[in-house]
This record gives sequence, C-alpha cells and structure tokens, in this order.
Amino acid sequence: MDGGAGEIEARWSTRARDWGPPSGTAPVDDARINFDQGLPDPSLFPIDELRRALDQTLAEDGDQALRYFGAGGASEMQYGHVGLRRTIADRLAARDGRALDEGGVTLVNGSTDGLALAVNAFIDPGDGAVVEAATYPHTRRFIGAAGATVATVPVDDDGMVVDALPRALDELRAAGATPKLIYTIPSFHAPTGTVLSEPRRRRLVEIASEQGVMVLEDNCYHDFSYDGPPPPTLRHFDDAGVVVQSDSFSKYVAPGLRMAWVAGDPAAIRGVVRVRQDFAVSALLARALQRLVVSGDFDRHVAELRDHYRHKRDLTSAALREHCEPLVSFREPTGGFYFWLRIADEVDWEQARATAAAAGVAVRPGARFTDDTSGPQHVRLSPIQVPEADIEPGIAELGRALRAAVGPSPAS
Amino acid sequence: MDGGAGEIEARWSTRARDWGPPSGTAPVDDARINFDQGLPDPSLFPIDELRRALDQTLAEDGDQALRYFGAGGASEMQYGHVGLRRTIADRLAARDGRALDEGGVTLVNGSTDGLALAVNAFIDPGDGAVVEAATYPHTRRFIGAAGATVATVPVDDDGMVVDALPRALDELRAAGATPKLIYTIPSFHAPTGTVLSEPRRRRLVEIASEQGVMVLEDNCYHDFSYDGPPPPTLRHFDDAGVVVQSDSFSKYVAPGLRMAWVAGDPAAIRGVVRVRQDFAVSALLARALQRLVVSGDFDRHVAELRDHYRHKRDLTSAALREHCEPLVSFREPTGGFYFWLRIADEVDWEQARATAAAAGVAVRPGARFTDDTSGPQHVRLSPIQVPEADIEPGIAELGRALRAAVGPSPAS
Repeated sequence: MDGGAGEIEARWSTRARDWGPPSGTAPVDDARINFDQGLPDPSLFPIDELRRALDQTLAEDGDQALRYFGAGGASEMQYGHVGLRRTIADRLAARDGRALDEGGVTLVNGSTDGLALAVNAFIDPGDGAVVEAATYPHTRRFIGAAGATVATVPVDDDGMVVDALPRALDELRAAGATPKLIYTIPSFHAPTGTVLSEPRRRRLVEIASEQGVMVLEDNCYHDFSYDGPPPPTLRHFDDAGVVVQSDSFSKYVAPGLRMAWVAGDPAAIRGVVRVRQDFAVSALLARALQRLVVSGDFDRHVAELRDHYRHKRDLTSAALREHCEPLVSFREPTGGFYFWLRIADEVDWEQARATAAAAGVAVRPGARFTDDTSGPQHVRLSPIQVPEADIEPGIAELGRALRAAVGPSPAS
Repeated sequence: MDGGAGEIEARWSTRARDWGPPSGTAPVDDARINFDQGLPDPSLFPIDELRRALDQTLAEDGDQALRYFGAGGASEMQYGHVGLRRTIADRLAARDGRALDEGGVTLVNGSTDGLALAVNAFIDPGDGAVVEAATYPHTRRFIGAAGATVATVPVDDDGMVVDALPRALDELRAAGATPKLIYTIPSFHAPTGTVLSEPRRRRLVEIASEQGVMVLEDNCYHDFSYDGPPPPTLRHFDDAGVVVQSDSFSKYVAPGLRMAWVAGDPAAIRGVVRVRQDFAVSALLARALQRLVVSGDFDRHVAELRDHYRHKRDLTSAALREHCEPLVSFREPTGGFYFWLRIADEVDWEQARATAAAAGVAVRPGARFTDDTSGPQHVRLSPIQVPEADIEPGIAELGRALRAAVGPSPAS
C-alpha cells in the first residue's frame, strides 16, 4: 500500500490517539505459574452445563433465540433479552432488599462495557469523579476518556476511607469540576482484597445522596465470600436511587461469554442505555444463561467455586507465611481473588520481580492500579486461576526472589 | 424512592441526554404482515448447524473457548478471537483481491457496534462526514454523536452520485469542517436497493485517496446478489488503504448472535480497536462461527438463502406490478433486502400508511432514512422476513390502501 501506516494513523481521531489500552497493562500470558491475572479457574468452567443450556435454548426457543429481539419487543435491542433481565432483577431485589424489575437492568458485553457505559451516562468533559487510590485501571481510563477530573481517596483495611470522601468532593469543586460519580469496588476490592465496612457503606451512600453524586458499585466478586455471607450491597442502603451496580457472569461462569449487566434505578439505567452504540447483547447467550440460572446449575456452580477458591486462598496464605514473610506483609482476604502484598522496604522489588519472572512466576505490580507512591512496593497476587499444586511452589519461588533482592532500604 | 426519575435524569451526561435512539425509529413488531424491518427470514436460521458448531466448540476446545483470550494471546481482548479473524481475513483477501491478515480484522458486537467504532476512530468534534442522502440512520446518528458536520450526496439508480462528492467535500471545508469520512452502502443499498456502478466505485476511492478522507464501506448485504456475482468491493480499488469495511453475520446467519467485523488496512483497524471500551467479543461464539464457516455450512447456507430471497424478490416485484402500479414506481433490486417505492403524488401517503397499518400491513416510511424532501413520498419495503404466502396478500392490501388514499396531488 502507498502512504503506509503513518499516513492512516495521522487521520485517527483524538480518541483513537489518546485512548488505547492503559500502557503496560497487557496481562502476562506465558508464565509457568501465573498469579498475574484476575481470572476464574478455567479448569472449573461449567462446560457441560453450558453445552446443555445452549443446546436446550436452540432446541426449545428455536428462531426466537436468534432474532434481534423476541417477545420482549424492540426495546430488547437497547436493553437486551427481557427474560434474563427479569431473572436478574428478581435475584438483585432479593439480594439488595430493594424492588427491581427488568427496567432496572440492562445486559452488556462484559462488565468492562457496562462500566464504560455507566461512566459515559453521567460524566461530561470537565466533570469530576472519585475513585479509590488503588482501583481497576480500565474504569479509571473510561473516566479519563469521558473528560473528568479524578480525585482519589485512600483504601485501608476496611475499604475506601469514606471519611476522606467529602474532602475529595470539595477538592473537585474547588478545581471547577462538578462531582458526578464515585466509583468503588466495595466487596473484595481489586487490587487490595478489602471489604468496605457496613458503617462506611451507609455513610458513602449518605454522602452521595446528600451531594447529588452517583455511585458506581462494581460487584464482580461479591458472591465469592469465603468466611460468611457476603456483605450488604451499597444499593441496600440507597433510598435515593443514586447507586448503579455493575455485575458480570465472567467470574462466576466464564469470561469468554462476554455477558454482564448494569442495574439500578430505572431512570439511571435509561441513561446508561441511551449512551450505548450497539444493539445490546446476544439473545442466544442471554437465553442460555437464563436457563443456567433458572435450572439451579448457576447457584450450585458458584457454591462449588466458592469452596475451591476458599481452599486456594488458604493454601496461598499458608505459603506466603512460610516462604515470604517477613519480606511481605498482607492481610488475608475474606473473599474474592486478590492478595495485596506489601513488599518490605529493604527489597528491591524490580529486581525481585525480574528474578521471579525469569523463574516463570508472574505477579502483577501494584503500580498498575495506583498512581500514588504506595504502588511500587505493592503486588497483587491472584491464586485463583493457578492449579492448586502450583500455588506453594510458585510462592516459594517468589520468596527466593525476594530474599535475593534484599539490599539497603531505598529510604536509607 | 425519593427524588424520583426526574432527579436522576437531571444528572445524565450530555451524551445520555442527546444521543438515544433516533426518534420514531422503533421497528414495528406487531404487524400481521411485516414489511417494515430489514430482517433475515427467521424460518431459515441455520439452527441445527449452529447447535452442532456450538456443541463441537465446547466439546473440542473446552475451556479455551471460554477464556478472555486463548492461544492468540492477550490482543484477543482488543481484536477478538484470532482464529475467526484469520478465516475472515482469508475470505476477504480472496473477495477483494487485496492481501489481508488477522491484523486487518477486528470482531465487534454486531455491525452497529462496528460502524460506531469506525466512526469514532476517525471523527473528532468539528470534523466533516459525507453520507448518502438516504442512508442507514444509526450510522448517521453515530456520526452526529461524534460531533461531525454532515453533508449528503444524492443516490440515483447507480447508487451514490459520486460526481457530487467533490462539491460536498468542498462545502464541508467551506463550513470549517475537515472531511474525515465518507459512509456508503455501495451494494444493495439500504434503503434504496441500488448498486454503485463500477466506474463510480473507482472514482469514489480515487477521490477519497486524493483528498485524504477515509471511506466506511458497509457491506452487510453484499453476498445477496440475485442476478449474477456480487460487484467488486470498494476495497478492491483501494491502493491507499483508505477503505474500512463493515460486514456482519447478522443477515447471513442470525442477528441474535451479535457478531460482526471491521476490516481494512491494519493501521486503520488499530485505530478502530483503540476506541473500543470493551474486551471484544464472545470467544465461544467466535469459535463456533469459525467452525460454521470452515465446515462449508456457512457458504451452503448463504447459497440457499440467496435462492429463497431471490424468489421473494420475484414474488414482490410481480405483486407490486399487479396491485400497486402505477400508484407506486420502483426499480427491481438486483440483490439485498429492499424495495424503494416512489409513491405517486396523488396519493396521500400518511392516509395510505394508516389504512395499511389498520389492516395489519407494515412498511417503513422513507422519511426514516432521509432528511431531504424526497423521503415523505418514499417507502422502504422488505419482503425478506415475510413468509412467501403472505407477500402477495400483503402487497394487495397495500394496493387497496394506496387506491383509497388517492386525492388531488398535494402539489396542485
């Protein structure tokens, strides 16, 4: 071709130039023992149940499963298949103790799609948003792409430090940005694994309601609670309709489906639907997933996963205590996928990371999730997709790499 | 809930407020005989072939089919499953006579998603775009949402009047808008059914190359050519890499899959991928569709559809001649889904439409596709999703409605 790539790239829009994936966030996909990615365990995917659900859907629903929309009418092209939305709404109503019908749920192509839509539904260029100081980088990217000024609040052992929230909102206003959105992962937070305490949940929703700011509640790990029932959701405390929830089948069934949803007050969901630029999701997949849920297969599967993942959590804690303490400190997560390791100051973490990587062991640098100075001496470690037998050897390898990288503290 | 819908809507972003679906474009979904929608015939969906392909995919590929990405690596989270992209690239290379590999193809959630992404990859607020005077309203909406000034060129029996293109581009420049994109449906155009002539195809690509404007070629009906081989694509004439193609499985397999692709110069596709805000498409559906194509089932199915749809085209032409001429005039389409009917001036079209609708017969008003004055006396009629036995009775009903609405010409 004439001209070549440079000439075409010169025609890209500002968005194509500026957006892109966050630099350096490509997942590691070639490690021998891979604690890098936040993936469900592929060996536990419910393949047979999905085969059955898909086959039954095509056998029983026939062409209805393959149309732009079915009996639910043309609004399915904006909101997605009404059957799965009703099933989800009923479950959320029970979970959150809040009435919800299908008008409060829209199906999206994976939670990343849903998070972007929720951001775009409420944020204009020049607005403000608050995120946790360490957070899911893609949502932060979408907030930036929507043109918002971002303020951060710290995360401690009880999740977002909600007492710092009013100041963050004030800072945004002082900078001329109207706060529109607070993004949080309250349960089994990525990357820190923390759970927002119940008093803080109440207070967070109270502040948002008083100040007229929407809350985007990312619940993608919510049902992976290992030591008791999951915490109440933010929406449970929401009398004002300010909480918009993002949930997904990716962690509970499989990410290769790309099926998730955004739920909340119908007026909020209407806004989310209005910014989408597609015709919702695959009716076939939505109907198959509704079958999976209604049959009970879904709940049975999640209960099994919870047991498996709890065991991996336990193996990981034991191995970290044996092989890595005191060069790492951590709090055992009570659910979800992530250990957030604080690396001792005397460890040259870059060197340790390189040594572990050379031995085939990957973890995710904390700096991926944060832009404050706490990132470089933190590591996110997910044992969930690692085979059980590899967890202890992998963490032992990490321990060796840490010990080999001990030097004078960079602060001294 | 306190506050209620109004208070939440007041927090919507400008996008949520302004975008939405184009007003009055909801498809008719309750007509007895429905010529309104541009749908493939649901009675011909390849249900058994899809069941087989999906079941084989899960049986043979197992958890690989259900991951964020498989052996193709993490770039599958941006571009989609590499296997289907290679299969598509090989077919496009053969179709277009242009080398193409998987870097020139990205999978998207239906062609609507792909059209929006292609628009967003090249258009900044204040830029200019050219569309046909009657066109697919959703793409036009995406162009408007991206902030472009739109110029139109007429469509005649040979498709877009390409001789009018330089003037349209000059008009944009005179209005201070840099032309960035020309959107066209060159083959079996929606809504007019026309085919862009080969000399015009050459000239269109020549003008775009000379003037540094990208061309978005929407090919979603391209293989439904009833009277001979389909025309050469625009990309066939493209030495400069300015043509970006949108194609989809929706019309050839089923819209309920939501699987389509955007193809072109890898530098252009890189731009398209950079503006997406999701993790591409379902690996499971992509792998199943690759199987459908590789097995030969896809080509056999498209050949069968072509025969069925040709027959419907013929039935429709005959019925229109018998029941509606001379109150409508039309040119028989040589492919695709659409008859574009010119309603005689002496017909009060609004009255005729209402009479037909009351008798259970729906067609789509031409005004949906155009903002010039030619719309109101035009109708788009698609017989493709209508059962064969209903075509002639439906058109007879339309003829009765037309005759009942004859009055003095509104021009007289």
